[in-house]
Amino acid sequence: MEQLSFAQYSLVYNSFSFVIAAMGAATIFLFLNRSQVAPPYKTAVTISGIVTIIALYHYFRIFQSWEGAYAVVNGAVTATGRPFNDAYRYVDWLLTVPLLVTELILVMRLPGSEGTKKATKLAVLAVIMILLGYPGEIATEASTRWLWWGLSMIPFVIIQYELFVGLRASIEAQPAAARGLVSAGRYITVGTWFFYPLVFVLPMIGLGGTTAAHVSVQVGYSIADVLAKAAFGIFIYSIALKKSQFEGAVAH
Amino acid sequence: MEQLSFAQYSLVYNSFSFVIAAMGAATIFLFLNRSQVAPPYKTAVTISGIVTIIALYHYFRIFQSWEGAYAVVNGAVTATGRPFNDAYRYVDWLLTVPLLVTELILVMRLPGSEGTKKATKLAVLAVIMILLGYPGEIATEASTRWLWWGLSMIPFVIIQYELFVGLRASIEAQPAAARGLVSAGRYITVGTWFFYPLVFVLPMIGLGGTTAAHVSVQVGYSIADVLAKAAFGIFIYSIALKKSQFEGAVAH
Repeated sequence: MEQLSFAQYSLVYNSFSFVIAAMGAATIFLFLNRSQVAPPYKTAVTISGIVTIIALYHYFRIFQSWEGAYAVVNGAVTATGRPFNDAYRYVDWLLTVPLLVTELILVMRLPGSEGTKKATKLAVLAVIMILLGYPGEIATEASTRWLWWGLSMIPFVIIQYELFVGLRASIEAQPAAARGLVSAGRYITVGTWFFYPLVFVLPMIGLGGTTAAHVSVQVGYSIADVLAKAAFGIFIYSIALKKSQFEGAVAH
Repeated sequence: MEQLSFAQYSLVYNSFSFVIAAMGAATIFLFLNRSQVAPPYKTAVTISGIVTIIALYHYFRIFQSWEGAYAVVNGAVTATGRPFNDAYRYVDWLLTVPLLVTELILVMRLPGSEGTKKATKLAVLAVIMILLGYPGEIATEASTRWLWWGLSMIPFVIIQYELFVGLRASIEAQPAAARGLVSAGRYITVGTWFFYPLVFVLPMIGLGGTTAAHVSVQVGYSIADVLAKAAFGIFIYSIALKKSQFEGAVAH
């Protein structure tokens, strides 16, 4: 791999710092404003904040790992021999992605045990999806990356189908004031989640050499994580607030 | 002992980081959602969160100890001469295992002083069990490890018997809605606790050389701790929530 330029090194460095600030801000907002929603929605908001604080923890580690992997001397960037740890992202996703589907299902407040069943099913599929992605992520050969990408896309597509088609009836049952927001929640999930498989393929489509691809993957995942976790968490909070107001049981 | 490979080093490293994230997430969930259960169950949920925060603290130390025990230079792992500190686990268990049996007994809400008696008895047995395990854990000879393993299994079996047979009558007295969950709690305790004596014997059954055994023990205990503390704590919370809802006294 050709040498990382100082501009490339800084771009990744500053992206990670941006994610730390965004995740920290979202966590504080969600934990403090949890008091603004009615009791049935508090768990959805709690879990949204837990997702962003888990990401905050991992981005601290990712940032440190990036700093430790390169030495900057007189504007030249050289590898220190301590490899950048890609596993943090997958450990993060293993915990946060099942929680992300859970917060969406929880805020919908499905009747009886339907919510628990759907959340469990989607969470298990999410774990399988992430476990299948990891062997590809750490592989350097494009063919190996494609294989695991393809396998990982199977649960990915099933989850998206479940959210879109399987939850259609539940959308109809939402109060009119929140129906549009809850339905948008499915689109936002699909939209933000699609970033990940797209970022994953960047090194396989030869994006201007491997160093550029390496940088694009780090910056791409950083943007995807802020949208899918911090922005999505605030969005879940707005649904919870809307439904609380509608049900006339807002606790202040 | 043969040299640790970088893959083995990273597997343990990432497992420890995973446990830190999982314990932190469980702690925040339990402390925030403590507001969702009725007053008689708040202490059980508080203690569940204390167990995970004690584990969080110890895994920070364990992680640092692991980082300090090895140096990674150009992908090669060498021992620094500062030995990895096994004692953190036993100090952790000495505090958390008596609390784990207490949270299960508390959420059952036994009549009169029965709960205090049972919790005290089980907590004392748990402390004896852990104290008897430690001399074996730090021993390198298989025969010494077996001796202390065997001694430690005596209180282990008594605790399991007490949970299974001794608490049978109390299960019958639980509200119908929570009976299945409380009964499952005993199975989950037995299931997750069995991991520990099994992981302990890995180095004695010659699992592909001592380095592989060393790695398996660290990863095995990490998984066992997440199940027996974080997952178990969330489970205790669900029993508390179910019983609060049944008793119609949910405090918000």
